[in-house]
Amino acid sequence: MTNQAVVDVKDKIRSIPDFPKQGIIFRDITTALKDAETLPIMVDYLCEQFKDVKIDYVAGIESRGFIFGMPMAYKMKAGFVPIRKPNKLPAETYSQSYELEYGTDTIEVHKDAFPQGANVLIVDDLLATGGTAEAACKLVKKTGANLMGIAFLIELEDLNGREKLTDAPKIVSMVKY
Amino acid sequence: MTNQAVVDVKDKIRSIPDFPKQGIIFRDITTALKDAETLPIMVDYLCEQFKDVKIDYVAGIESRGFIFGMPMAYKMKAGFVPIRKPNKLPAETYSQSYELEYGTDTIEVHKDAFPQGANVLIVDDLLATGGTAEAACKLVKKTGANLMGIAFLIELEDLNGREKLTDAPKIVSMVKY
Repeated sequence: MTNQAVVDVKDKIRSIPDFPKQGIIFRDITTALKDAETLPIMVDYLCEQFKDVKIDYVAGIESRGFIFGMPMAYKMKAGFVPIRKPNKLPAETYSQSYELEYGTDTIEVHKDAFPQGANVLIVDDLLATGGTAEAACKLVKKTGANLMGIAFLIELEDLNGREKLTDAPKIVSMVKY
Repeated sequence: MTNQAVVDVKDKIRSIPDFPKQGIIFRDITTALKDAETLPIMVDYLCEQFKDVKIDYVAGIESRGFIFGMPMAYKMKAGFVPIRKPNKLPAETYSQSYELEYGTDTIEVHKDAFPQGANVLIVDDLLATGGTAEAACKLVKKTGANLMGIAFLIELEDLNGREKLTDAPKIVSMVKY
């Protein structure tokens, strides 16, 4: 994977001004996902960054973390664990709340998602302020599993989300703004 | 792929009584997804059912349709298109509402998701009453694309959801209850 892969993917991501509200530039990954040549470049790039790490489980954060997490689990021959919004998972869960601009939100994982000592990679589409990813790190730690790293397709560097993710030994993003 | 694959996958799906409410048996796919041997069996089985059909795009219905749709697109070398809940997609969309037990729900797809005449496979995790899948079929038709089929991991046969999906030339489910 060369820098050309990163340039090609960035070229396929559509920027939409003022969504979901005035002043925000939304990075729209649907234009990259629908391109059959670009789709595997994104999945393979993120997997390759962890090729020297033993990953037993990929944990995807609902819902766009599912989009990248599942094909990564498939390629890495790992299991897949969904980290979901409240009241979606049917068995016993751990919950973790995090702050939004206004109010709080919560994500959950099954208590029995990982066996003790399993190696886990968290995946999401976008690293912005890092609140969701930080909560996901805390959830993985609560289960007793080993957090090996976090992979994002996109990182919004100005928001310094990476600084919140001190529990993650390795943080990877493919496309930076 | 043999019937043994189907038996093995069914064996890994956990049944949880009275979730999300009294009297419902919830079929929990997280126990199958987290098993690294079972995960590719599910993805590969669903892909194999469409090996004689040219699929240009896999359209996954939010959010568990993303879980199977993305690795299928990856394996089939197709593009992936998310069918999402309202106000999630940033560009112009088509909307389709459908009836729930109480009230209605809506799903959306980008108007420019597929080029004219593209061949589309819809993917979701579960066929129950078929309301969501029927709405997804209508959305794909609105875009002008060709609906080639629908793939589900699980079908609840007693609910006759299949009867609603008259627009789909091929309907596949791996595990039936």
